[in-house]
Amino acid sequence: MNASSSVLELAADRRYPAVWLRDNCSCADCVDPGSGQKLYGITDLPPDIRICRVEQTDDAVTVEFAPGGHRSRFTRDWLAAHRLDGPVPADDRTEDAKQLWQAADLAGSMPTTAWPAFQDDPEQLAAGLEALRHLGFVLVRGVPTTDRAVLSVAESFGHVRRTNYGELFEVRVEDQPTNLAFSSLPITPHTDNPYRDPVPTIQLLHCLENAAEGGDSGLVDGFAAAARLRTEDSSAFETLTHTPVTFRYADAATDLTATRPLIGVDPIGRIREIRFNNRSMQPIVLPAERINDFYAAYRRFAGLLYSTEAQLSFRLEPGDCLVFDNTRVLHARTGFRANGRRHLQGCYADLDGAYSKLKALRRRTRETNGAVQ
Amino acid sequence: MNASSSVLELAADRRYPAVWLRDNCSCADCVDPGSGQKLYGITDLPPDIRICRVEQTDDAVTVEFAPGGHRSRFTRDWLAAHRLDGPVPADDRTEDAKQLWQAADLAGSMPTTAWPAFQDDPEQLAAGLEALRHLGFVLVRGVPTTDRAVLSVAESFGHVRRTNYGELFEVRVEDQPTNLAFSSLPITPHTDNPYRDPVPTIQLLHCLENAAEGGDSGLVDGFAAAARLRTEDSSAFETLTHTPVTFRYADAATDLTATRPLIGVDPIGRIREIRFNNRSMQPIVLPAERINDFYAAYRRFAGLLYSTEAQLSFRLEPGDCLVFDNTRVLHARTGFRANGRRHLQGCYADLDGAYSKLKALRRRTRETNGAVQ
Repeated sequence: MNASSSVLELAADRRYPAVWLRDNCSCADCVDPGSGQKLYGITDLPPDIRICRVEQTDDAVTVEFAPGGHRSRFTRDWLAAHRLDGPVPADDRTEDAKQLWQAADLAGSMPTTAWPAFQDDPEQLAAGLEALRHLGFVLVRGVPTTDRAVLSVAESFGHVRRTNYGELFEVRVEDQPTNLAFSSLPITPHTDNPYRDPVPTIQLLHCLENAAEGGDSGLVDGFAAAARLRTEDSSAFETLTHTPVTFRYADAATDLTATRPLIGVDPIGRIREIRFNNRSMQPIVLPAERINDFYAAYRRFAGLLYSTEAQLSFRLEPGDCLVFDNTRVLHARTGFRANGRRHLQGCYADLDGAYSKLKALRRRTRETNGAVQ
Repeated sequence: MNASSSVLELAADRRYPAVWLRDNCSCADCVDPGSGQKLYGITDLPPDIRICRVEQTDDAVTVEFAPGGHRSRFTRDWLAAHRLDGPVPADDRTEDAKQLWQAADLAGSMPTTAWPAFQDDPEQLAAGLEALRHLGFVLVRGVPTTDRAVLSVAESFGHVRRTNYGELFEVRVEDQPTNLAFSSLPITPHTDNPYRDPVPTIQLLHCLENAAEGGDSGLVDGFAAAARLRTEDSSAFETLTHTPVTFRYADAATDLTATRPLIGVDPIGRIREIRFNNRSMQPIVLPAERINDFYAAYRRFAGLLYSTEAQLSFRLEPGDCLVFDNTRVLHARTGFRANGRRHLQGCYADLDGAYSKLKALRRRTRETNGAVQ
């Protein structure tokens, strides 16, 4: 193929447009070898770029572009790994990369790991983070029941997100609770801090003491409920993905609001983020004739989230630290008798750091294995 | 109106559906007086709820619901403030609440404040945060040129977001830069850390030393450029809002990726978040026949962002600390001679905390004014 062309066609389903190839050149003039960062902007490339020459070997394809004459070499492995006509690659923050679950799928087989190993053994840490990515949570057992130990768990895979509540927050009964979490009342499944944007994407809850009668914990896969809603009632799903809802939290020094849909999807419709918290939801503003549709959809989604089939129930024991994806997994607790002592410490962190750690650990494992072979 | 009804109609354009009213009851049985949080979930309300009785006074409307007989009182002020048939309320994270600008609009009148006042005077702090909200940035002058002072600026209105770079990062020339920011090369307008999700929504850059030849700063209003793209080429705007793009940053211990569109919109189409960084953008994956459309749209958007009219240029002097909305405002710098010393310290924070502080300050001002009157 030597005639000027706008596309490199290696097979009918292996086509690479000229501008795409040129923009992905990895030569040292185009990409800084030290940082791996591109050294040019899109407007530095000629707008009418074409392929004027192609050289093929067993390993690679070298392309010469016109105007300008820049030459770029692409290995066949790289081209195969970057097919354009295949399926959309999974985005591990969306439903794509998840195993959706109902309570029965995990009853008796909750993803669990032990603290010293989670901290010290890269394989155990990777397995725990993989459960967080795949199932939306992991239970770390045997964390010392000491003040602020929850921060060490967060720092083992990421960075604590400080908020107006401080680095950590205490969950125990207060005389004048500013949040129902600090009372002994039952709390239905919800995501935390929907009034924050960016919302904390990971929550940790570390049990220091749980001698109260009641106060059991529940987890619900919000992605599974949203996917089910889409199947059973697609117009309800559309309503919830397209209606902005405002959440608010205010106290003497704070006035946090965020306006986001209950079900967030990415630009190609994949479920990406659940916000669900009746306690802090503000009045919906929609034309009156659309209010009933919104409420019907909201009620239906709530019914799926609150159902017995959805909710995985268990009891946190002292030393247990639950780590969960706050954009996907809702948490709940039953009410308890306030005369029994119950004390958790919680903090927030973010998924991007946890996934980065997971990928870096896997890369290291691959490199180590490679060196051994 | 005593017949059972599904809607309270105070006027033709003042209608309030029964379920909406019931869900917004603020009595002490429905909302915890201490925390202001709702005490029930949507599934606790009867699905077929209707209004069976209405009592009106000059100040308020009291509604009785059936089934169940719950009574809720709404002041007329509250009802007027929560009209359903008016315009969609502004969301201050979207273009709604912003003054979009080109360089000429702000040349010679950059929003500027002075450090001791920003820290000590609530009115100055509120004015600075209002500029951040409205224009997307504020320049704080006179910050001591001491190590870590940038963290004090962030803490004056919010919380530092720690990342793999630590609490703060140094911007100066390094021998082996892992990022072009740490070289003397010019850097075109970009948002920071697009490979992070949640992306840091505020960036701070504090100039400690700027004796280099070159190294001037630039800011671009990404919302203005996106709005202009929508006007001039709506299909390019559609392409960029609907194409997920992956960004990546990797070093020995880190492997961060995020997949988001270059222009993020909310569920009703309002511009909400710009991600633009040629350096860390990964190969686009789209069917080959759509690649050229993507690149044409990307090039057009880049052309608007890189244009002289868009870019507000200025020079950071020692003691200047730029605080900007990293979801809206792109920043750039010209290249400089590496023999001149140039040293900035930067850190990240988040808009939700800054807006919370702004709202709490305004509330306090209103209360103080109220007490005086």
